[in-house]
Amino acid sequence: MPTEANTRAARTSISIYAPATVANLGVGFDILGLALDAPGDRVTVECADSPGVELVAITGDGGQLTCEPARNTACVAARETLQAIRPGAGIRLWLHKGLPLASGLGSSAASAVAAAVAVNELFGGPLTPFEVLRACVEAEAAVSGRHADNVAPALLGGIVLVTGWDLDAIYRLPVPDNLYLALVTPAVAVPTLAARAVLPENVPLRTMVHHTGSVAALIHALHTGDLALLARAMRQDTVVSPRRAALIPGLDEAHAAAYDAGALASVISGAGPTLCALCDTPRTAQAVTQAYKEVYNRLGIGCVTRVARPNLTGARICAD
Amino acid sequence: MPTEANTRAARTSISIYAPATVANLGVGFDILGLALDAPGDRVTVECADSPGVELVAITGDGGQLTCEPARNTACVAARETLQAIRPGAGIRLWLHKGLPLASGLGSSAASAVAAAVAVNELFGGPLTPFEVLRACVEAEAAVSGRHADNVAPALLGGIVLVTGWDLDAIYRLPVPDNLYLALVTPAVAVPTLAARAVLPENVPLRTMVHHTGSVAALIHALHTGDLALLARAMRQDTVVSPRRAALIPGLDEAHAAAYDAGALASVISGAGPTLCALCDTPRTAQAVTQAYKEVYNRLGIGCVTRVARPNLTGARICAD
Repeated sequence: MPTEANTRAARTSISIYAPATVANLGVGFDILGLALDAPGDRVTVECADSPGVELVAITGDGGQLTCEPARNTACVAARETLQAIRPGAGIRLWLHKGLPLASGLGSSAASAVAAAVAVNELFGGPLTPFEVLRACVEAEAAVSGRHADNVAPALLGGIVLVTGWDLDAIYRLPVPDNLYLALVTPAVAVPTLAARAVLPENVPLRTMVHHTGSVAALIHALHTGDLALLARAMRQDTVVSPRRAALIPGLDEAHAAAYDAGALASVISGAGPTLCALCDTPRTAQAVTQAYKEVYNRLGIGCVTRVARPNLTGARICAD
Repeated sequence: MPTEANTRAARTSISIYAPATVANLGVGFDILGLALDAPGDRVTVECADSPGVELVAITGDGGQLTCEPARNTACVAARETLQAIRPGAGIRLWLHKGLPLASGLGSSAASAVAAAVAVNELFGGPLTPFEVLRACVEAEAAVSGRHADNVAPALLGGIVLVTGWDLDAIYRLPVPDNLYLALVTPAVAVPTLAARAVLPENVPLRTMVHHTGSVAALIHALHTGDLALLARAMRQDTVVSPRRAALIPGLDEAHAAAYDAGALASVISGAGPTLCALCDTPRTAQAVTQAYKEVYNRLGIGCVTRVARPNLTGARICAD
């Protein structure tokens, strides 16, 4: 538990960057997430005299995000963190969105993590990572469901396994060295709740067995640095991706184009519509983003492409 | 492909030992198996003038096993192996059962593996392990279903992941150093087909997610040598074990007694009725077998208990 000594604000203000995340990785629905080096969200907090969390401004969101504190993950996470450190204290919060909204890149998670870490650091870091994580999960629950497969990698970096047993049962997995991600975010809206609504309630037992075999191979591949096996495992999902295909125009064509351009795997990032391809060189990743872009150009759908690398350290203090 | 040069019988006779195996390990239904140092089956083969496989004798089975070649896994595996090496050649085969039948310890798999390896070695080992495995899976298919979660560890040793993608997608996983198994085989019959018939056809999606999270943690635990996490993962099965509990008298009491005696996990071995407990010292493993035995004594059910260690090398040539 935090003591009085370490719950005094250690600074007057601080800014934290938290990265985008790719959840699921194909077969790891609701249990796996990977942090990207960019893009990310940035939260600045400073001490205030009046108690609670005041959201001063949101920038970078094109005016789309609500400033209503109960529906804003940065505010919820900040409030939960503050409550755990010093109930009754007050902070002011600025949120800068680097992440596109509802894109499948863990936008709400990045804001929550940046805010929770910012508040914790403002008070000298009295909370453990798991206590910070708990605040972030509460924030996710307020907007899109109680899951940690985006907040955990955004907080800790790398590839994270969220077992679902308990919030303390979260494990960082090894990240292969030569991992490059090609991403495309087509300009279509896929709300997380809609993406969940299309999922089957039940799956055949033999499908579960195939899925567990694939997830096991994926974890083995990470521990052995076997990128080909990792990709093969990621491509095995028969449960979630097929149901979501109808929500993402051009999905099959985009996957096919990515493989033609040398991608090892091409999967939906989180609930979509962003697609993420696993590549083993930066050159291939560049070629895959180009291939993705050509598909969406042909379909007359705008898109943003990115090449990213894994972020291995998670949320961090901003230098400036 | 084998050439004429290496398909001449390299010896006149050979004996092979193949070990018992514990399939499933709790949450790894149909995808994981662990080889034990003992007990095991032994197959001796020698060249014969007349073509095909002649089963000369079975010992150690108490007269229970069929000598009908099409229903005996040793014969089927020998025939498949011979067919792949030199169709038209002939062998005689002796099978000594060290394993109890229909016990959940991979009895049919051990016989199949011993026979396939024996035939391959008799001809100088022209087949790859995967070709040998294919013959063993055909043998399993003839008696209990096309699955490799017993034959793969019996052949290769250690803990083996059978992805189910393809027979070439089989992976040996690291085995923690301080792993001791306590086993009890109560004198009740649980035919594999009956144990499969009680399984649900479908599982809720959220159950599948929990299961994949647990399997992922199990693989991570093996790679990090974390015995406590391994045990925690093994204990998470909510799909298979609860359905099979009705087939195994005293199951809940036996599990409880094992935990009281210090077991880290207590699970059904394969289709049962053998139970297998994970322990971190030989002393604990001994205490757990005693605890298992007391439960079955109280219930008036005979049982055989064993302490075993993992077999890390798989099937082997017998010295004598």
